[in-house]
Order: sequence, then C-alpha cells, then structure tokens
Amino acid sequence: MTHHMPARRALIRLLGASCLALATGQAVRAEAPSFSASDMVAAERLREAGLASGLAYELVDSLVTEVGARPAGSLNDQRAVDWALDRLRRLGFSNVRAEPVPLRAWKRGEAHAHITAPYPHPLVMTALGNSVATPKEGLHAEIAYYPDLETLKADVSERARGRIVFIDQKTERSRDARGYGRAVAARIQGTAEAAKRGAIAVAIRSIGTDRDRLAHTGSTRYAEGLSKIPALAVSVPDADLIGRLTRYGQPIKMHLALQAEGGIAAVSHNVIAEIPGSELPDEVVLIGAHLDSWDLGPGALDDGAGVGIVTAAARLMLEAGLKPRRTVRVVLFANEENGFDGAIAYADKYKSQVHQFVGESDLGAGLVYRFQSRVRPEALPLIQQIAQPLAALGIALGSNEGSPGPDAALLMRRNAWPALELSQDGSDYFDWHHTPNDTLDKIDPAKLGQNVAAWAVMSWLAAQSPVAFGPMPTAAKP
Amino acid sequence: MTHHMPARRALIRLLGASCLALATGQAVRAEAPSFSASDMVAAERLREAGLASGLAYELVDSLVTEVGARPAGSLNDQRAVDWALDRLRRLGFSNVRAEPVPLRAWKRGEAHAHITAPYPHPLVMTALGNSVATPKEGLHAEIAYYPDLETLKADVSERARGRIVFIDQKTERSRDARGYGRAVAARIQGTAEAAKRGAIAVAIRSIGTDRDRLAHTGSTRYAEGLSKIPALAVSVPDADLIGRLTRYGQPIKMHLALQAEGGIAAVSHNVIAEIPGSELPDEVVLIGAHLDSWDLGPGALDDGAGVGIVTAAARLMLEAGLKPRRTVRVVLFANEENGFDGAIAYADKYKSQVHQFVGESDLGAGLVYRFQSRVRPEALPLIQQIAQPLAALGIALGSNEGSPGPDAALLMRRNAWPALELSQDGSDYFDWHHTPNDTLDKIDPAKLGQNVAAWAVMSWLAAQSPVAFGPMPTAAKP
Repeated sequence: MTHHMPARRALIRLLGASCLALATGQAVRAEAPSFSASDMVAAERLREAGLASGLAYELVDSLVTEVGARPAGSLNDQRAVDWALDRLRRLGFSNVRAEPVPLRAWKRGEAHAHITAPYPHPLVMTALGNSVATPKEGLHAEIAYYPDLETLKADVSERARGRIVFIDQKTERSRDARGYGRAVAARIQGTAEAAKRGAIAVAIRSIGTDRDRLAHTGSTRYAEGLSKIPALAVSVPDADLIGRLTRYGQPIKMHLALQAEGGIAAVSHNVIAEIPGSELPDEVVLIGAHLDSWDLGPGALDDGAGVGIVTAAARLMLEAGLKPRRTVRVVLFANEENGFDGAIAYADKYKSQVHQFVGESDLGAGLVYRFQSRVRPEALPLIQQIAQPLAALGIALGSNEGSPGPDAALLMRRNAWPALELSQDGSDYFDWHHTPNDTLDKIDPAKLGQNVAAWAVMSWLAAQSPVAFGPMPTAAKP
Repeated sequence: MTHHMPARRALIRLLGASCLALATGQAVRAEAPSFSASDMVAAERLREAGLASGLAYELVDSLVTEVGARPAGSLNDQRAVDWALDRLRRLGFSNVRAEPVPLRAWKRGEAHAHITAPYPHPLVMTALGNSVATPKEGLHAEIAYYPDLETLKADVSERARGRIVFIDQKTERSRDARGYGRAVAARIQGTAEAAKRGAIAVAIRSIGTDRDRLAHTGSTRYAEGLSKIPALAVSVPDADLIGRLTRYGQPIKMHLALQAEGGIAAVSHNVIAEIPGSELPDEVVLIGAHLDSWDLGPGALDDGAGVGIVTAAARLMLEAGLKPRRTVRVVLFANEENGFDGAIAYADKYKSQVHQFVGESDLGAGLVYRFQSRVRPEALPLIQQIAQPLAALGIALGSNEGSPGPDAALLMRRNAWPALELSQDGSDYFDWHHTPNDTLDKIDPAKLGQNVAAWAVMSWLAAQSPVAFGPMPTAAKP
C-alpha cells in the first residue's frame, strides 16, 4: 500500500499525466455526455492553483489559534461560528449565514481513576461523551476484564454484575479507517452491553492507534430500559497495564470519580456560504466539513483540516473568476461529534432541494488516494471524466459504492442524495483523533494543498456537469 | 547515521564477526598485557547468553507494573527499594543491601495554566522539579517571549520585569543526546536567569523531541540571592501555540496556579548487590543505574531499563558459574533525578575503595553503538581487547574521553575513578523522557538483550583484567 505519497511526487506525476488525461478524456467525450473542453481546462487550472494554495492551512491555523477547542453548545462553539462567518464573508462568498441548530449539550467535569489492587496505579483516562457522573465520592469495584466487545457480548455469566467492565478492544492501523470502524463499536455499544450485564461502570481501551499516555474521547450510547452507567476510556499504555495486571491472578480493583452533565439545552449553528449557480442556482453541490470539535484538543485534524480544505477549494473558483452552473455550497456542520444535530437540521430544511452531490472532508490532513461516487448509472461517464484530472494527483477511481464523510453520509441516507467521496489516507489519523494531541503540528501543508486541488476539481466539474447525478434509483439507495 | 539498527541485524553481524574478533585478539595478545583465552571465550558466551536473555525486560516489566512511578522520598520510592532488595536476593547475588541516603524531597501539587489573551487557551503544563508554588489564587501576567536561553541571557532591558518569562528553546533530535545537552540549560539555568531580570515566573518549552501534548518535567535550579519564582514547562504543541500568538502583536497573558512543596526531609536508599571478587575482592567493577524516577510516569526507560540491563548483565555471570577476579557490584542509585543524593552518598562512603571502573546505563532502551573509556593509558590495550567481542554487537570503539551515565560521572569526577561508557542510541529517548509517556511499550526486548550482552562482556573482562584501569593520571582528571 502506498502510504503518505509526498505531495512533491504527486506534482511530478501530475506533469507527466496531464496530456494523457486530456487525450483519454477526448476519447470518452466522443461517445457519451461530457464536460466541455474549457471546463476541463479550468479544472486543470484549479488543480494547479490548489496545489500552490496555502489558504487551507492558513484557515486551520487561524481557527485553532484564535478559537481552539469548540465542543457543540459551548461558548467556544459560538466563537467558532462567529469566526467562520467572518472568514467566509471576507473571502468573498455569497449568502453567508448561520442557521440555528438546537441541541442538547454534554459537558465534561473533573474525572480521576486509579487502580487500587493488586498494585496501586493512577490511570490516564477521560470520560466518554454522554457519560453520566459517578456519585461524588466515586465508585470502587473489581474489574471484569474482556479482551474485546465480542467477548463481552458472548458472556452469559454473572461475571460483570456489580463490577466495572473493562473492554481491551485494540484498534488496527489502516489507510481507509476500517481498523477504527471495527474497533469503535466497543465505545458506542460497550456501555449498553455492560449495563445489560449489571456492570456499575464501563472502561474501554482508547479507540486509537497510538501508544501515548492520552485517552481518546468520543460518544457512547445508552439503551432504553437499561441503567445509565459511567463510561470512560483509558490511554493505550494504561490499558496495557491493566492487561499485565491480569497475570497476577488477583482481583484488579479500580476507583473512579467522574463528573459530567448532559442534556444541557443549547443552540449551535450550521455555517453556510455559497457561490450562486449561474444556470441552475437551485441545484446544489454541497461540500462540507464540521465546525465543532471535541473538548480535549483544538481539533486541527478533526475537523479544522476539513473546514480549511472545502473552504479553500470553493474559494479557488472565486479567485479564478469561474461561474459554476450549479450553486456551490460550503456547509460547516454543527455538532457532528455528539449527535449530528447540524446534519439532521440541514437534511430537514433542504429536503426538497436538488443536490447534485453531497461530500464531506473529515478524516484529517492525509493525502487523497481514491475518488468514489454514489450516483445514478447515467452519470457514471461524467464520474470517469472527473477522475482524469484527479489521476494526476495520485488519486485512483474507486467504485460507485462510495460513502462521504459522516454528516454527508447522513444526508445521503436520509434524503437519497447522490454523494461523492475523496478518500484520504487515514493511517495516522487515529493516533491523535479525539485527544489533546489533535494540534496544528500534525498537519503537513503540502498534503493539505493536494486535498484542496482534488476538492476544487471535483466540485467544479460536478457543478458543470451536463448530466444530473441524481435522483438515485431506489435499488441503489444505501 | 545509523539509527535503530534492528537487533536481528546485530545478531547476523555477530555470527560473521566472531572469528575475526578472536583472530585479531590473538595478534594483540602477543605484544601487550592481555586477557586469557578462556576469559575471552567466557566473554563470548556471556554475549550469546545476553542476546538470548529476557531477564532485563522481565525486571523492567515487574518494576513498572508492581511499583510504577517512584520519585525520591515518596512511599513508592520505598516500595521500589523493597522490590529491588527482593529481586536481587532472589537472583542469587551476595551482600544485597540498602544503604540509607538522606535527602530533601520535592512534591508536586495541582497545577494549571492558561493563556487569557489575545485568545483564551488552556495549556498542557507541568511544574519543574524544585519549583516553588504560586500564591493560591495564582499569578496573572504578560509573557515576555524569548526564542531561547541565549536571547534571555543577552537581554539587558527591563522587558522581563514583572512578567512571566517564556523560553521557547527547541530540542534537536540526536543519537548521542547532544541535542538534549544543548537545550537542557534552558530548564536548569532559565529560572535563575529570569529571576535575575525581575520575572515573576518562568515557563519553558518542554525539553523534548516529541510533538505530544505532554509536558516534560525535570529539575530546575535557584540561585543564591535571587528570588525563587515558580517554574514550569508547557508541551511542545502548546509552546508552538504561544509562538503563533506572538504574530498577533498584542500582549500574550498567562494565568498560572501551581502548588508544590520542597525541602521535605526524607530517606531513600542506594540498593547494592555483589558478586564478590575471587582474587581482588576489594577492587570494584561498578555497574549502575538509578532506581528513582520522576513522578509523572512509571519510568520504564528512565531508568527501569538501566536497572534491568545492569542487573541482568551481572546475573549472567552467576548463571554461567563465573568467578570474577574483582568484585562486580550492581548499584541502583537513589534520587538521580533531583539531586544525585545517592551518588554523593556512595562517593563519600566508598571514597577509599579501588574502583576498576564506574559505569551506568541511563539513556533508555536503544541499542548500544559505541564503547568508550576513561582509563589510564597503560590500560588502553585491554580496552582495545574488550572492544573485540563488542564489535560483533555492532558496537564501535570510541575515544578515551568517555563519560558514563550521570551518577557514575559524578563518582568519576569526585573520586577520580576510571570509567567505561556504553553509548546508547538515544534518538527517540527524549520523545518520552520525564513525561507520563515513559511506559513499558516504548521498550523493544531485543534491543534490551543487546545492551545486556554488552554490559556483561565489558563488566566480566574489566573484572578479569591483568591491568588496573586506574588510578587516573592527574592530567587526565576530567
């Protein structure tokens, strides 16, 4: 697998591949609906401009330096909304607006945990999003150790009852986030599975690929009819320690004191900016990211990078003086992290509007290596043509079973909108995801430029397409 | 530069190089005092046994799992002493003992800092060792930013007065710890330099080569006649943030609340174990490590690894049934981290005893790449012979200007004892040094085995030497 192809190498490829892309493009155009030659030339210019653009990095830098962590419903979340409105207006977009998103916020308090037996040890831990608090004096109980979620689900004994369930689920490193996808069920479902078996709390090994003494937060879910128990993650080395303590064959005991408050009525906002369509203004090319972050770090990768990438990609069209046929809409969603309230509000409000595609950048700042679609079959020749200028960026065409980022995927599912996906290399993303370590230094500006180039090319051509990408045939609905 | 040569490659080299080492060894022996053939054969057997030994890793694992962090003078420090006595006795050493080391302990309390202007940000920080506390309500002041210690030292203005001095000293990655050596002056001297200029507190960029949201502690020093001001380190990404905030051209303000207590009367212990010498029992081969750690993490690398390495190396001689001519003494020093009290007590107590050499393993768990000495010239032919079996481990012979680990270097300076050094690759050591991240997962057992092999070979041959390595000529005294 090609991990982290340097942007410089992508540039070299680009120079060699441009002519080829044009040549094969012409072959396709002879037989099927196709982009105009001038649209293709504009796409290639956008690509060059994207590679050279520092705007995405400047935006992330500004967001994390001037705002920082911005959990949904917090004061800093509101500061982020103000920041976004200001930046989008100054960049020259039209119809810049903040659309209210009511939500129930969750707020972290003090939290401490330590092992008391067989040997005393402090634990580096963090509450999972939505966790209830412990009693003020804390809880003290024996650990019931499970190597993974499957083992817990298969347990029909009384072993977990009255204990703190510990799930030592490991996260595999992978380019396409599939290791995370497999592991994260332990965080989301583990709490209810533990409660179902009478546990008084649940602790998980952090869902992450690092070996740092930093715990990964993220939301967990409670189930109807089951008691709500406190839920936390410990850092990977602390999970290793608990694993090693099991070999002494004596009870492992944990003390846990965790404060948190949920259900706080709050309002956040989706921030929206547009380049109005010149011919089909009511048809929307939606390129999104989410503006909120978890509270533990400034969210440079999650999802400051996405905010920078899609904003800079749209801005390139303005700078080039291009007038897209369809409306290009940048949407910075509210509260992706803990409820998808922004995506849900958007899906409801714009239900009846035609969307050419929905897409989202939300896997950090790695290089894009693949372009995928989820469009009606009649649009596939256009997808193949969009893939041509992307190939010069080291991006391969994947399947028509693509899935965009999390908010966009929700829109796709709810409203049966077509979707486009630019798959990023996420090999190191889960080293830092949902931790205090999600900081600007983790971003390589050159890689961000490749992302901007890809998003600009894809968005521009989709906006120009002579063919609508939807509606989706019922059978193809995910 | 060869970083991180895999142990497997070292093993392959070993097989090819063994015969050569013997052959050249014989050539030297014809003209100069030399080791007996049977001593050289025993050295090679020790080397093979060291590479195959898992004991060093088992010892570190046991220490960090059963004891954990063990700052000098703490309850856990005493638990570590008990742990060491128990392990050394069970391993079959003679004269296992704990020698009292009175000291003044320093204890960390709660500490918080955040930037209040131009934009609010929490800071990941930690108090430096020996720091005094702030007033309970904390301090709030503008930052006086200095890119490095030199700039602060050169400042003759009033800029620092009434402010919190921030020293953004960067640590370069290097194999031989020289990057750390250059940077650490900011931590040790920065406090007095800031106080001299009227600062009310000092904050430094962590002395470390990582980019993790974890601050590096370590001791700082106050100077006579200057006020004692609170001293802290912020994590590398937080230092980057402060650097970025300077570009807004507005005052950067920090709030700091830090609790700590110093001067606590306590007693720790040097833990000592021996293999008594068969012919020259009053001459000592001293192989050391330090038993204490900083309080933030379990000290797997600093210096659990050293404890494991030198203990396992000596144990190999017992297992092989070897009877060294001189006494081999394992010394686990007390309070290396914050005062060298153990080394000072040892230097005083054993001042009049002949030491064949002093050495210490205290740079983590990287491979040894160099063997150096500091011995009288007459002993150099023996040093060259010791280098022969080490060559098969990928270890090159360096100069006679070597310097052992910190405690051993103190002994060498105070008592003019000869010294031997096995230089470890410290390229990644300062990613984790003095942070919560100094955990067992950072250790590669195969690399630890190479260290054990090298220490066993060197210690055994030094103990057998027909020539004394000292006394040092006055001129060569460091």
